Amino acid sequence: DLPFSIICGPCQLESLDHARMLAERIAEACAATGTGFIFKGSYDKANRSSLQGKRGLGADKGLEILSKIKDEFGVPVITDVHEPSHCAMAAEFVDILQIPAFLCRQTDLLLAAGETGLAINVKKGQFLAPWDMQNVAAKVASTGNERIMLCERGTSFGYNTLVSDFRGLPTMAETGYPVVFDATHSVQQPGGNGTSTGGDRRMVPPLARAAVAVGVAALFIETHEDPDNAPSDGPNMVRIEDLQPLLAKLRAIDTIQKG
Amino acid sequence: DLPFSIICGPCQLESLDHARMLAERIAEACAATGTGFIFKGSYDKANRSSLQGKRGLGADKGLEILSKIKDEFGVPVITDVHEPSHCAMAAEFVDILQIPAFLCRQTDLLLAAGETGLAINVKKGQFLAPWDMQNVAAKVASTGNERIMLCERGTSFGYNTLVSDFRGLPTMAETGYPVVFDATHSVQQPGGNGTSTGGDRRMVPPLARAAVAVGVAALFIETHEDPDNAPSDGPNMVRIEDLQPLLAKLRAIDTIQKG
Amino acid sequence: DLPFSIICGPCQLESLDHARMLAERIAEACAATGTGFIFKGSYDKANRSSLQGKRGLGADKGLEILSKIKDEFGVPVITDVHEPSHCAMAAEFVDILQIPAFLCRQTDLLLAAGETGLAINVKKGQFLAPWDMQNVAAKVASTGNERIMLCERGTSFGYNTLVSDFRGLPTMAETGYPVVFDATHSVQQPGGNGTSTGGDRRMVPPLARAAVAVGVAALFIETHEDPDNAPSDGPNMVRIEDLQPLLAKLRAIDTIQKG
Amino acid sequence: DLPFSIICGPCQLESLDHARMLAERIAEACAATGTGFIFKGSYDKANRSSLQGKRGLGADKGLEILSKIKDEFGVPVITDVHEPSHCAMAAEFVDILQIPAFLCRQTDLLLAAGETGLAINVKKGQFLAPWDMQNVAAKVASTGNERIMLCERGTSFGYNTLVSDFRGLPTMAETGYPVVFDATHSVQQPGGNGTSTGGDRRMVPPLARAAVAVGVAALFIETHEDPDNAPSDGPNMVRIEDLQPLLAKLRAIDTIQKG
Repeated sequence: DLPFSIICGPCQLESLDHARMLAERIAEACAATGTGFIFKGSYDKANRSSLQGKRGLGADKGLEILSKIKDEFGVPVITDVHEPSHCAMAAEFVDILQIPAFLCRQTDLLLAAGETGLAINVKKGQFLAPWDMQNVAAKVASTGNERIMLCERGTSFGYNTLVSDFRGLPTMAETGYPVVFDATHSVQQPGGNGTSTGGDRRMVPPLARAAVAVGVAALFIETHEDPDNAPSDGPNMVRIEDLQPLLAKLRAIDTIQKG
Repeated sequence: DLPFSIICGPCQLESLDHARMLAERIAEACAATGTGFIFKGSYDKANRSSLQGKRGLGADKGLEILSKIKDEFGVPVITDVHEPSHCAMAAEFVDILQIPAFLCRQTDLLLAAGETGLAINVKKGQFLAPWDMQNVAAKVASTGNERIMLCERGTSFGYNTLVSDFRGLPTMAETGYPVVFDATHSVQQPGGNGTSTGGDRRMVPPLARAAVAVGVAALFIETHEDPDNAPSDGPNMVRIEDLQPLLAKLRAIDTIQKG
Repeated sequence: DLPFSIICGPCQLESLDHARMLAERIAEACAATGTGFIFKGSYDKANRSSLQGKRGLGADKGLEILSKIKDEFGVPVITDVHEPSHCAMAAEFVDILQIPAFLCRQTDLLLAAGETGLAINVKKGQFLAPWDMQNVAAKVASTGNERIMLCERGTSFGYNTLVSDFRGLPTMAETGYPVVFDATHSVQQPGGNGTSTGGDRRMVPPLARAAVAVGVAALFIETHEDPDNAPSDGPNMVRIEDLQPLLAKLRAIDTIQKG
Repeated sequence: DLPFSIICGPCQLESLDHARMLAERIAEACAATGTGFIFKGSYDKANRSSLQGKRGLGADKGLEILSKIKDEFGVPVITDVHEPSHCAMAAEFVDILQIPAFLCRQTDLLLAAGETGLAINVKKGQFLAPWDMQNVAAKVASTGNERIMLCERGTSFGYNTLVSDFRGLPTMAETGYPVVFDATHSVQQPGGNGTSTGGDRRMVPPLARAAVAVGVAALFIETHEDPDNAPSDGPNMVRIEDLQPLLAKLRAIDTIQKG
């Protein structure tokens, strides 16, 4: 088993300075706790609840920022892609491509991502069972690229609510691919705020501890210095100052779980 | 209130002759029951459960078939689009564009569809509440195109199962846009057959009757002369010979409901 | 097929005069629309959301009222029972015993009810699948009493919400027992008001029409002259003056469905 | 915080010798891992899926066994009660009364249990939200008895499936009452085997680890020396030889979580 890692960063990339500031503080928290660090940032939020939601910096600026963070901090970087034609472009700048949950059945996107040869983190659709991800992974693997990660991010449970079914983690692990738990989007309340998505960041630490106790390769957590004023997913992001103590506990649980 | 209509055809377009044969039989059933007829066919199944599922004829052949059906039968035709760049192309051949449920939050697709000026039938994501469709419709309407239809096609209910919440029909109707009930995909059991989607076509007639009794502008029903050997959605499609008696009952219920 | 019937009355019995007033108005609406009428009233609400909820008149007063309504109006009467020891007592006054949804798996209650020889209306638990009701019915039938009705009243769907899965009606009908749809409790929002159950009475007519279009033996509807001030289930009860036009539509749909 | 404890025993009491054998082996596992031990056994399974399911030894024999285990092993014992009239009787033999999930809204049962003055473990109904348990606890507390435990045992999720929503543990803990996680019944597949309840015992250890990492006062686990031949809940019970290694991990996670 590899050392415990987090995929961490803001929801949206806001500026190079902002990304640098967060990357520095995340790197400190990871170093202090022996946690691996993969920097995450989105350059385009292509499926906001409403048109009023901010879309992001766009591919040019966003990918440049990710590339600089990668060089300056010496960490792998990940971003999400929404159309087949974006995969090759993004692949020139990042180490891992992420397939959004809503798009996890779009064959062309999975194939285009797989063909880049990068590692691919596929989020499980809110509408899919854990065992259905085998077919999703097979689409990527058909390109000859087996560097696949499967990511749980909550399942539809009534309206405007997701539930994290932790049985899904060992079930997805039966594919042989590493499993990631997204502790940020799992606490979303989709559409819960009328024209935006709500959530409850207080639930991130307990669900993160649960996931690590069940057993995961990595944890996906979004963080921000001022989540309540972040351009997206504010209700779900962890305050940057809360990250290190959370990681310390997660690391200790991970050691027991894998021990 | 407009006369009761159906959006009807095979799941996948198979050939011009096949489309013609079905269109002819559907047109007969509609004429005999005073039902409006919009012909539906897909040229690309972009999100099959697994790679083994057949994709379809492709845009060139598929759109040509739709265009011929439109001319020969004098009926409006509808097809689904999966990427923003396809909207303008498809719009040259069809009367209505359909947004697939998984893609109903993809802003660029909704905008590109809206900008064609065609009527747009947006399927409600299995992961969305009925009231969340207002934000979805607003994305299309932001293009100045208010020719929007909202379509219920089942909501995630546990794993590998959908449920039709008929409260969603009047809730979506509060937007002022016409509401369609998709009686075919609502009875899907997504992923229920391992590498393909299951379903139970025996439930199509009762759910179709329920929807019409609640009140809808149109019903979406896929049909086939041999559903068990159809390339997709076979378990859910109605046999073509069962269509006319079903329509007769639906038409009678519609008259009472709207009377 | 029998003539279409309703099981109708207030949620809680309030007084003899109140029961009489409602019974008279329901009887008029039924007579005007050719609908069969079974009077329903509860004498004890044994599972209110909170202690503050009113329990009811108690068995002595309640059963006496039911008995008088039965005699004065010449209609069958139904009430719900909560403990095995109450069945025989209640059976002296009423024609049909009802098993509450939460208690539909309690073997002793089902057996005691069955042993009275009365018709038994078993509500499907919010936590059960339609096909699970076969085992429930078999418990009653083991007493030699096959006068069983199975009643859909909503299924858990996330938190504080129920959904009506209309596929459940034909599925339960496969048992051979008549199926009832409870249009009142199906629109409950359990616990939705903090210390009481919420609901949305505007959804009663569309769901009632849906159920009749699917096909049911009877419909269960609670009614009140002033639902907003009723001691229980106010948010879900239909205003008594709205009953007759609703029944007229339902009757017409029933005729088509069974025709 | 108290030392970590388990509520553990067979689903059904089978005989005094059997209970003794299990109690001895559980006590050993608890002693070896510093885990508190409360012995659990049911004398009556009052809500089996079907009539064919075994009911149990009955109150006389069952309570006598519990009483002997209590004396011989010096551990508290717990059993479940199903009717108000059983509470006082059972209270003479056991230390904790348990309210079954289906019955957690039955006011008379909650009051009769509370009035015994014993500690009461109330299982959350599969149909209730975590925050709804406040009203349930208030019913017990109205008797002056505040010795209340709230127990998560899975929530309805589609048909024949439960999901464990671990956000429910901190939510229920906001009441101030200790929270228990039932790792056995949470993995049930109610009605999943046609006339009996299925389940997946492989999911017990991951869900138990998750619950302890989230934070609980105690864990409820059923165990058996030969689960596949146990009279009830066989698919979900942990093999007795697997208990000690599981407890060792849970204890270590508990120390980190509470540390």
